[in-house]
Formats: sequence, C-alpha cells, structure tokens
Amino acid sequence: MADDLRVALWRNGEVQLAAADEPVVTAFDQGLARGDGVFESVDVIGGGTPYLDAHLARLARSAALLELADPGAAVWRALVDALVEKWPDDVEGACRLYLTRGLGEGVPPTVLAVLSPVSAEVLRQRAEGIAVVSLQLGVPADLRAHAPWLLGGAKTLSYAVNMAALRHAHAQGADDVVFTSLEGGLLEGPTSTVVWAAGGALRTPPLETGILAGTTMGRLFARAADAGWPTEVVPGTVADLHAADAVWLVSGVRGAATVHTLDGVRRGDAGLSARVRELLDR
Amino acid sequence: MADDLRVALWRNGEVQLAAADEPVVTAFDQGLARGDGVFESVDVIGGGTPYLDAHLARLARSAALLELADPGAAVWRALVDALVEKWPDDVEGACRLYLTRGLGEGVPPTVLAVLSPVSAEVLRQRAEGIAVVSLQLGVPADLRAHAPWLLGGAKTLSYAVNMAALRHAHAQGADDVVFTSLEGGLLEGPTSTVVWAAGGALRTPPLETGILAGTTMGRLFARAADAGWPTEVVPGTVADLHAADAVWLVSGVRGAATVHTLDGVRRGDAGLSARVRELLDR
Repeated sequence: MADDLRVALWRNGEVQLAAADEPVVTAFDQGLARGDGVFESVDVIGGGTPYLDAHLARLARSAALLELADPGAAVWRALVDALVEKWPDDVEGACRLYLTRGLGEGVPPTVLAVLSPVSAEVLRQRAEGIAVVSLQLGVPADLRAHAPWLLGGAKTLSYAVNMAALRHAHAQGADDVVFTSLEGGLLEGPTSTVVWAAGGALRTPPLETGILAGTTMGRLFARAADAGWPTEVVPGTVADLHAADAVWLVSGVRGAATVHTLDGVRRGDAGLSARVRELLDR
Repeated sequence: MADDLRVALWRNGEVQLAAADEPVVTAFDQGLARGDGVFESVDVIGGGTPYLDAHLARLARSAALLELADPGAAVWRALVDALVEKWPDDVEGACRLYLTRGLGEGVPPTVLAVLSPVSAEVLRQRAEGIAVVSLQLGVPADLRAHAPWLLGGAKTLSYAVNMAALRHAHAQGADDVVFTSLEGGLLEGPTSTVVWAAGGALRTPPLETGILAGTTMGRLFARAADAGWPTEVVPGTVADLHAADAVWLVSGVRGAATVHTLDGVRRGDAGLSARVRELLDR
C-alpha cells in the first residue's frame, strides 16, 4: 500500500499511529460484522482541516442516533492532529473518522481515523462536473422522521446500498446518483447533498426527509445568505432539477460537483458554479 | 477476550488462524469503512456444520448481488474446518463467514470466519420464546425486486438499521422485531425469517418482497412438506400473525423461536413448536 496513507487509533487513552497495511480491527468488531458505527469524511487543505468542527458536531449527532459512546471532540482532534502533522500543504487529503460499537455493549467503542490523498477521480469530477442518474430509495419522504430505527440523519458505516447505487450508476456510464423518495421527492446523493439554483435562490431538500445534514451545504448556504444570495430548504423533484439553472452534488471532500448530465440529459450551470466555489473556498 | 473465540483468515491462498483479540482487518477495508460485504451465520452442532451447504449457496448469491468475488465453497470449507477442529461436541457454536470488498476494486476481497459459543441469551430465547414488536421498514413490498441497487435478497454487512431495530425493541421490553412493508405486509426479522401456522399450513412471505431466502426456513419447509404438513409462500400481515395458530422467527443459530408476545399481546403456539423443532433437528 502507498506510504501516503496514514492511520491513527485511539487506544488506552492515547493516540497510536499504524501503518496503512497493518490490521487494526478484530474480526469480532461490530463495525465490521454489522456496519454498526458512524463516520465522517473531512477535507484536508493547506495541511489543515478548516471545517472539522461541523463534521465533529454531525459525528456526535450520528453517534447519539445509534446510541454509541462518542469519545468527544478532543479525542478526534488528537487523532486528526497526529494524521495531518507534516502532511504536505500542497496535497489535498481526505481524512475519515470512524467510530464503531467495538466488541458490543459495555466495552469501549473502536475509534480510529485515516488520511489519504484525494483521488484523481474526485479531482476530475470536481473540475469537469458529473453525470448523475436518479434512483428510487423506496422510502416515503415523511417516514424516517417518525421511525428512528431507520436511522435517518445518521451517517452510518452501513453504506452497502449507497455503494451499490454508485455501481449501478457507473454501469450506466454515469458518475453519481440522486436518491428520490417513494413519491419522487429529492433526497440526497449516496455521499453528498443535492443543491440546485432556481428562482434566484439556492435550494436543498429538508432534513425531515431523513437525509444527512450536509456540512458543506451548510457552509455554502450560510455564506450565500451572507452574500445576499437567498437560500431555501424546500422539497423538490427530479423535474425541478431538470428545470433548474444549475445543480450540484455537494460534499466535504469533492466540494460542489456540477451536474452536467441528469438521467442522460445534458444541462448547464448558468455560470453559477464559479460563484458557488468562491463561496465555499473563501 | 475469552479463549473459546476462534478466528480464521484466508490469506495468500491458505488458512491462517488468529487470536480473537488480534486485529485482522485494516482501516481501509471497505467492509469496515462502508459495510460493503456479505456474511452468513452457521450453526455448529455436534462439532460439525450439517447445514453449511445452504449457507454457502446463499453467500454466493449475496456476493453476486454485490458484485463481489466469492472465493468459493472449497475456501469457506477450509476455513470452517480449521475453526471447528477440536471444537467440543457438546458446545453449540455460531460460525460466521465474512466476505468484504477488501481495499476496493481490482484487489482480493477480505475472507474470514469466526466461531464462538452460542450465547446464553440465544439459548434462553430458543427455550422460552420471544416477545416481538412489528416495525415499519418503509419500503413497498414490490419495490426491491425491481431496484437491484437496494440489494434486496443480499445478506450484507450493512446491518446498522437491523441492529437499531433490535435496540428499539429491547427498549420496549421486547426481544425481537418483525419488519413490515410500507403497506403493512410481513417482511422478515432483522436476523430471521417469519413463519406462521394457519389454515393447517406453514406460511412465510414471498422472496419478491426483497427479504432473504431463509436457509433454516427452507429446511423446515422441505421437511414439513415431506411429512405431509402443507407449506405456502404467501403475503401476510401483522393481523394474520395475531390470528395464526403459531408464529416463529426462524434463523440458523437460534432455530425456531416461538413468538409468545406480538406487539404486547400474548399468544400461544397451539403446541406446534415441538413439531417444528422435531422437523428442524431430525
């Protein structure tokens, strides 16, 4: 494995570094056996993690939804600090934080973090935009808010369906996916938030649909509002995306990826992507 | 960790044994990072695994649905043989087989198996029966058959919702869950198949709902039919369970657990559990 991959564990009350090809999780870990855990993906730029706070806040919420013991921000910061130390300023990185149920109830959770360079494919998609297909997730938009066992709003390790949806898109020559509710309402991407520009505003679907609270969407919307660009949290449909001035899938590492093709139909961005990027990067 | 836990890995074309507390999976394994893999739970009785074939067949189907490279029955048998060697005949065990995407596309998958004694709680539930609550899974009964990215029928490592549903049941003083479709149709338990006795027949819901093909249900139904007890694969509802002569949650390790309470309502089994157990164990 490449030597630019880094791993840090929280064990016995301290940070321990590990080689990327060193096994760090046992066969009985519930994160492995049951996808029973939560995670975050954090962008590393200029040798730092300027947006870590928002990710740690969401990780704490995800952990609470799964009734997992979050070790707290100080522990996560110690892991991230150990990973980014001497990381080159000019190499963008993806830092992933993992919290699993470990060996089960009553014992410490598994707490670890990894750091790797952002892949060339992610950089390409950020630069060139993405082709997206819409796929049915099968749940009604209003169900997950009232069915906590479905873990709406939690960023869990159980991403097999998210990965299968991406494979399904790739098999159709697309890069990514927009999940829709049973009624055809917009939800989110498998690893991103859906944002579109219409009616002079930036729009994104409501959290009550069970989607994740996008940290990067949150930063974009706060800065857009400050800059006089109205923002709206509203239900939408795939038809709304086709009719929009621009559509992006927004996430922590890839940033705002411009959707240039939706369900096989080419579409433009009305020149708005530059403004979105400027807001995200300022 | 107890020394009656065993771990076996398939690495470099051979079986390697590991201690239960020895890390065996790296931080970049997609089974850990994304719940991207499949598994089986196999009962170990009398020092052997009499029903392994059915589990290996289902594992192969799950792997195909996830586009994972299954190493094949010979590899799994070698792992299981290594684990059960010298396992005491009088200790019932649960053997779990795990196949993950490893480090991603184009590299070997992660292949491992573990063996542990069946827990006292599982033995208690088998002997005394279980209280069950019905919980909405949120998907229409006919959707997953036509939406392969939802991975209906695949036994994946992404069980966070299954585990959350069990915690939800436990918080209500129940032991287990019956998932229902959006329309209220019976699906399955988080780790079991729903079987009920009604109209002189044994019944279970159709696979077209996206549920797993229960290996133990399959054995029960084949033997029941041979013994002159009709079996039917039919849609059902929670009301059908309330009206049934008996209800069981059936799975590989726990066997047929008699449902003595459903959504808080006590119910009997018309003396049929003994017959079901006799069929399963013969």
